[in-house]
Amino acid sequence: MNTPTSGVHARVSQRVRQLHPSPVRELISVIQRPGMISFAGGLPAAESLPVLGPVEFPAWCMQYGTAEGDPALRAAIAEEARASGLPCSAEQVVVLSGSQQGIDLVAKLFLDPGTCMAVERPSYVAALQVFQFFGARFCHVDSTRPDLGFGNEAAPVLAYLTPNFRNPTGTCLTTAERAQIAAACDARRITVFEDDPYHALAYQDCDRTPICAQLRSASWIYQGSFSKSLAPGLRLGYLIASPDLVAYLAELKGGADLHSSRLSQWLVLQQLQDPLRPQRLAAVVDHYRQKRDHFAALLDRHFRDLAEWEIPQGGLFFWLTLRRHCDTRALLRTAVARGVAFMPGEPFYAEPPDACGQLRLNFTHASAEQAAQGLAMLATLLREA
Amino acid sequence: MNTPTSGVHARVSQRVRQLHPSPVRELISVIQRPGMISFAGGLPAAESLPVLGPVEFPAWCMQYGTAEGDPALRAAIAEEARASGLPCSAEQVVVLSGSQQGIDLVAKLFLDPGTCMAVERPSYVAALQVFQFFGARFCHVDSTRPDLGFGNEAAPVLAYLTPNFRNPTGTCLTTAERAQIAAACDARRITVFEDDPYHALAYQDCDRTPICAQLRSASWIYQGSFSKSLAPGLRLGYLIASPDLVAYLAELKGGADLHSSRLSQWLVLQQLQDPLRPQRLAAVVDHYRQKRDHFAALLDRHFRDLAEWEIPQGGLFFWLTLRRHCDTRALLRTAVARGVAFMPGEPFYAEPPDACGQLRLNFTHASAEQAAQGLAMLATLLREA
Repeated sequence: MNTPTSGVHARVSQRVRQLHPSPVRELISVIQRPGMISFAGGLPAAESLPVLGPVEFPAWCMQYGTAEGDPALRAAIAEEARASGLPCSAEQVVVLSGSQQGIDLVAKLFLDPGTCMAVERPSYVAALQVFQFFGARFCHVDSTRPDLGFGNEAAPVLAYLTPNFRNPTGTCLTTAERAQIAAACDARRITVFEDDPYHALAYQDCDRTPICAQLRSASWIYQGSFSKSLAPGLRLGYLIASPDLVAYLAELKGGADLHSSRLSQWLVLQQLQDPLRPQRLAAVVDHYRQKRDHFAALLDRHFRDLAEWEIPQGGLFFWLTLRRHCDTRALLRTAVARGVAFMPGEPFYAEPPDACGQLRLNFTHASAEQAAQGLAMLATLLREA
Repeated sequence: MNTPTSGVHARVSQRVRQLHPSPVRELISVIQRPGMISFAGGLPAAESLPVLGPVEFPAWCMQYGTAEGDPALRAAIAEEARASGLPCSAEQVVVLSGSQQGIDLVAKLFLDPGTCMAVERPSYVAALQVFQFFGARFCHVDSTRPDLGFGNEAAPVLAYLTPNFRNPTGTCLTTAERAQIAAACDARRITVFEDDPYHALAYQDCDRTPICAQLRSASWIYQGSFSKSLAPGLRLGYLIASPDLVAYLAELKGGADLHSSRLSQWLVLQQLQDPLRPQRLAAVVDHYRQKRDHFAALLDRHFRDLAEWEIPQGGLFFWLTLRRHCDTRALLRTAVARGVAFMPGEPFYAEPPDACGQLRLNFTHASAEQAAQGLAMLATLLREA
């Protein structure tokens, strides 16, 4: 069997020819090297993951299910969403194979090459890549302005927003900003795509009411994930959409993978119905708050003269702006060679700058000792440069 | 909260505007009605699904994994593929969330609006829909001709082939046809996309060697599924690709859902390593052979003057050509009202004819009694028409 290794690039689709390898995916193999101290991924702490006892799955888990997901799980998800302030019914829920899938489905639903969509600056890298793959032309949401900065230009079709503990910056939008965004999207009929994977991980009081709950006429998709509040290996998330969009999204979900694993669906349902769930979540949040505070103290010790940052109110990341402007992708290569990994800032920009001097540090995965050692190493590296 | 129900169609992407609701997905809700006798879906018999004892998952199942899939599972899949005649390494394997996902990924990889691809006539409806969604222009593979019927026209970029027990017709290609297709695709540099979900379900001796194994220069993707040989609820399948395509497909897999459920991956690995697996598969095949023969006897009794068919050598379906030409979609509506469902033939054609007078009958899901009752009802209905 002889396989050509050249020429294939000319035969693939236009959108694949423009594809850049995902920096997130590349990192997963790097951070799995033994001995690597990693602040790179968005991995939950191993000790926060649930320990499942022996599981007895009901027989129906083995058979085909419906694209939208199992009815009892959809109902439980809708109930939890209503409790967090989003009026919805089970019929508006589509279970996803992780919330990354929701990004793919929404991109399929709205994007043609050249479709204008709004994103935050910076925004989640793996979402930007999918939007780019489907040909999005980007504009930026400025949540401090009533017109969101769109001025008199044609409104974008879609706005991708992460109001709670944004990846990468950790920013949580204020109540006033949420209201302003909802009003602007209603006025301009911009469909809101609100991504909320860190909802459960709030370390202090802050308004987490979905922007989608405040819309009066615009269409919307709100999505959540069980990767951060439960376990990423289950690969389970969900979207909830305005009634005009649900049938489209269910159809696209069916075309993507028929439906999500019924084992994962059943396990998540058991967890949602577990009376100990609030207690379990509170313990995870307490644990992550301590890790955040420990990390903040280490940053204070090592980085005070090197960078600026804010304490994130929730989520998994610190976002550092270095005092010395540099290409953090180049910095990463040096750091990895010394055994410490982080996520460079440039890929989080829709149009990546030559150098942004910013980097994302995950504080949940590394142990206290690893954090101390890794941050000291990183500070030394920056001082040497 | 007030949601618009009109106007959304004008705001969705071009490809979604051309989307037709999936007849397969619509049927799933119909066949789940209590009391319905269904020959419609491709559902395994409930009694053929594995009964899992209490399962203890390793802790790492809960954490993020790599897009390509867990290494031990990729190795086991490659080993099984080599045993069925396809030379490959674990590095060429990408684990999928069911083989429907492979169709989505391959479509993303190769199709721009207007890209010419070859399909069988008829072909798998849920694949045709995804290809159409990504803008494919279809031509047809004629496996009886050395040039596959392409003549002097520009060769298609991609050929989607299901040599083993094709859905819907049940056809199994001969050794000579496989060689002829491989030679033609090599000569014209047509990438082969070989879909083989029914590989394990062979009820008599027949050549099932992958066409991909016989290619000398063309690129290829071979894909398989654990939905038919194990359990669809796990939503696990895989693709194996020529080395020039693997990195692209892994990247697209990551963009689609990061990776597949690690619980499902681990369960499938346990099954692949189970020394009782060959015995279990042999029992399923024996059971399905009996169901096929029972079904064939019932067809002989009720349909001899109504239709023509062949006995499928494997897979899940009989394909009936009615002596009276009619639109079987209209026939289905009447049949469902009486409590029996089948899959109409028209949607299996890339350009659906007004009426094809053909229908697909699944023989694995209904019980012997249901098959007897349902086929008698269907024959009565046809006689009345």
